[in-house]
Amino acid sequence: MASEKSAVILIADGTEEMEFTITYDTLVRAGVSCRSAYVRDPDAADGGHGAAGYATCSRGIRIVYDAVFDASEFQPSAYDALIIPGGAKGAATMAGSTAVQKLVCDFLKQGKVVGMICAGSLTALSSKLARQPLTSHPSVKAQLENHFEYSEDSVVVSGNLITSRGPGTTFPFALTLVEHLYGDKVGADKRRDVRGPMVFPPSTPF
Amino acid sequence: MASEKSAVILIADGTEEMEFTITYDTLVRAGVSCRSAYVRDPDAADGGHGAAGYATCSRGIRIVYDAVFDASEFQPSAYDALIIPGGAKGAATMAGSTAVQKLVCDFLKQGKVVGMICAGSLTALSSKLARQPLTSHPSVKAQLENHFEYSEDSVVVSGNLITSRGPGTTFPFALTLVEHLYGDKVGADKRRDVRGPMVFPPSTPF
Repeated sequence: MASEKSAVILIADGTEEMEFTITYDTLVRAGVSCRSAYVRDPDAADGGHGAAGYATCSRGIRIVYDAVFDASEFQPSAYDALIIPGGAKGAATMAGSTAVQKLVCDFLKQGKVVGMICAGSLTALSSKLARQPLTSHPSVKAQLENHFEYSEDSVVVSGNLITSRGPGTTFPFALTLVEHLYGDKVGADKRRDVRGPMVFPPSTPF
Repeated sequence: MASEKSAVILIADGTEEMEFTITYDTLVRAGVSCRSAYVRDPDAADGGHGAAGYATCSRGIRIVYDAVFDASEFQPSAYDALIIPGGAKGAATMAGSTAVQKLVCDFLKQGKVVGMICAGSLTALSSKLARQPLTSHPSVKAQLENHFEYSEDSVVVSGNLITSRGPGTTFPFALTLVEHLYGDKVGADKRRDVRGPMVFPPSTPF
């Protein structure tokens, strides 16, 4: 299936589980093959739960990851998109990882999609991305607003960099990723087809 | 902390991971102590993954549960609310469990809150709950509409039974659970305090 799309979604201890789960699930519903990659916290006493096989998320939900992120083995060529969820502690681990910073730059250089949501947008700063439109959770706005064209829109598309604000904007973030990944007419159809069975309340603004 | 609230959220193989995660996370944000209980699928070849320690959800996300649901050991007195998420296969396992049916009836008899969402509402039918207002995912409406006062509202409150429709209505479902659990003025405050930092898009209708 040459047209199949694929995404790698990072996860760490402290990742916001709604942001991770809504994005992963919505992409899978759109036919995107998803894989989660666990980013170790180098400061954790146990090396970041690597042995447990799961990430302990921000509100205590434990999610089994598909692989541990290892820059020496990771194959960016296998993926069309890279997603960085929020959750203060998880996002700090990702933003502080030079391997993740390099991955973000590599994906964008190769014309692939990079999505960041909530505190995940801090990785745009640590990766030294060029000044461009961007949003984030309000709690980290002060760290970002002098470096980017900061927006308070729910989802901001800047070329292949797609950013969003928090758990409450994750559905439109994920649906925008679907549309962007498939492009043009197919993307709009995919978005509509995925959105319908989710049964959003009438007059939902996305 | 006498005022602390607690909830048990059922999970099974095939549970809709967004419905599980949004509800669990939102309740934790409201100060509700949450515990997930895994309902085994008696028809599964391996007895329902009990040994693995996690549930494989509807779109492939694997969630580590807090306990295996065992009717002989379960203490309803420890909880203020019981939540039954959707996802066709997971909801079928829950609806078909006589122990879960008994739990639903016990919780309601004791004046506790029971929440069902999506195909989770099928458990209202298998538990032989009295005819009352109820909603569900549209895909199971035909099985429910002759037995209940079927509604297409996003969230339906019928005494202590709170039902909802799908992933797209899980946020208002969870926020309604928060409000209902804490009651009156405190509940409305809790709902507002939890909702704010989630950063919903402007004009979101809940």
